[in-house]
Amino acid sequence: MQEPTQTTTVPVLFTEKPLKNIHLTISYKGTNYPGWQKQPGLSTVESKVGDAIKAITGEEATLYGSGRTDAGVHANAQSANFHTHSSVPPERFAIALNTKLSKDIRIMESCEVPEDFNSRYSAKGKVYTYNLYFSPKASPFYTEYSWHIDMPVDVDLMKKASEFFLGKHDFSGFMSTGSSIINTVRTLESITFESQGPLLSLTYKGSGFLYKMVRIITGTLLEVGTGKIEIERIPDIIASKNRKLAGITAPPQGLFLKEVLY
Amino acid sequence: MQEPTQTTTVPVLFTEKPLKNIHLTISYKGTNYPGWQKQPGLSTVESKVGDAIKAITGEEATLYGSGRTDAGVHANAQSANFHTHSSVPPERFAIALNTKLSKDIRIMESCEVPEDFNSRYSAKGKVYTYNLYFSPKASPFYTEYSWHIDMPVDVDLMKKASEFFLGKHDFSGFMSTGSSIINTVRTLESITFESQGPLLSLTYKGSGFLYKMVRIITGTLLEVGTGKIEIERIPDIIASKNRKLAGITAPPQGLFLKEVLY
Repeated sequence: MQEPTQTTTVPVLFTEKPLKNIHLTISYKGTNYPGWQKQPGLSTVESKVGDAIKAITGEEATLYGSGRTDAGVHANAQSANFHTHSSVPPERFAIALNTKLSKDIRIMESCEVPEDFNSRYSAKGKVYTYNLYFSPKASPFYTEYSWHIDMPVDVDLMKKASEFFLGKHDFSGFMSTGSSIINTVRTLESITFESQGPLLSLTYKGSGFLYKMVRIITGTLLEVGTGKIEIERIPDIIASKNRKLAGITAPPQGLFLKEVLY
Repeated sequence: MQEPTQTTTVPVLFTEKPLKNIHLTISYKGTNYPGWQKQPGLSTVESKVGDAIKAITGEEATLYGSGRTDAGVHANAQSANFHTHSSVPPERFAIALNTKLSKDIRIMESCEVPEDFNSRYSAKGKVYTYNLYFSPKASPFYTEYSWHIDMPVDVDLMKKASEFFLGKHDFSGFMSTGSSIINTVRTLESITFESQGPLLSLTYKGSGFLYKMVRIITGTLLEVGTGKIEIERIPDIIASKNRKLAGITAPPQGLFLKEVLY
């Protein structure tokens, strides 16, 4: 049935709800996703969260993530924001969106942030953790979450080598080739080592990271630990800015985006 | 080219290799399997390991597991043995079989055992661990390995309640209905509680366990912790041998077969 057509001779009340900027803290297991970033025809983490927002708000919101994560890489706390006219209370978005998401993506927290907050541009730094699993046999419970290493490794030597990377450096030798970024200077504040049984976790805190930088530094440190790269060469390798002199790229499944700092 | 046909008029040397009994320690992530036990038309852990043995030895060996695990249940160290004429050195079977298995099943160790050793009948006891994850939000990294609980739980009360289960009891009230087992008396040696952040692990050590016994005791202890079952009722519930008076069956993904004792 069609309603009778109304002319606009009566005044229309202003009913548009105010635009809110909602921040999400997102935890995900990256194993079954081709990464964070939206890609045509692929189910990425970003597209899954975007679909959930649409299901809840009815709006096609743009989701601003703090940055990409690659296929197989995990996040304890990816950070993203979007704008909405929805009347859902900001803190309730976490629960509402989780009902629309599979269990390998969880919204851990949602809140309203100032209008000009942007998860990417407002970020002051990031924290990543990389897990190594030292054991003759891989564990089925860690294969999706770590890099299995079955050869002898000198962890103390890895620690010493890690100190060369601290501070402000041009890290272009520790960036995946093909990246078009211009400013390749970054500041690495700390690399901490934590052992628990066969698991060694390296946690990197810095102002920002180049494409695959954590994985290439981790691969290089491991090759120092196995004796393939001599520790004395590290300062020259950094200074060379030559990707070919650095070590291998550690595989994605050991990497976790642990925190975005604001 | 065909070789000239030989008649059997010359004596044939006895070349059959001796039969060896090989023991395997198997770790698996149960998420993607319908359980340990062979079932027609299904890819179970037992059938996958059996296929790997056939691929390596060429023989259809019977694999004797220490017992079943249900769909979604994991094992740190399932125990199984099989007989073979293969000349593969016993210790090498682990490496050889792993090349034929997917990464969610790993042979952690292989060795030769006495002829009369049987993983099931030689077992003196078992150790199981059940993981609870207490948090308002589930973690995508623990959904496959724990039972997510988002309500307040009194863990001290759970500990007190667990003491009633220790010792020798007829545990028929803590067995899944439909089990046809006759002797339902088992001895629970210990239930230990270990917390690590949001994770609470309950480890059960006993002479043997009835079908779903660990999961039903865990569900009952949790219901004591949430106040649904009064702790004073536990001795009566055990004595009643009535499944309906016990608590719910904890879901499979939190359960790990940790060790088989010989």
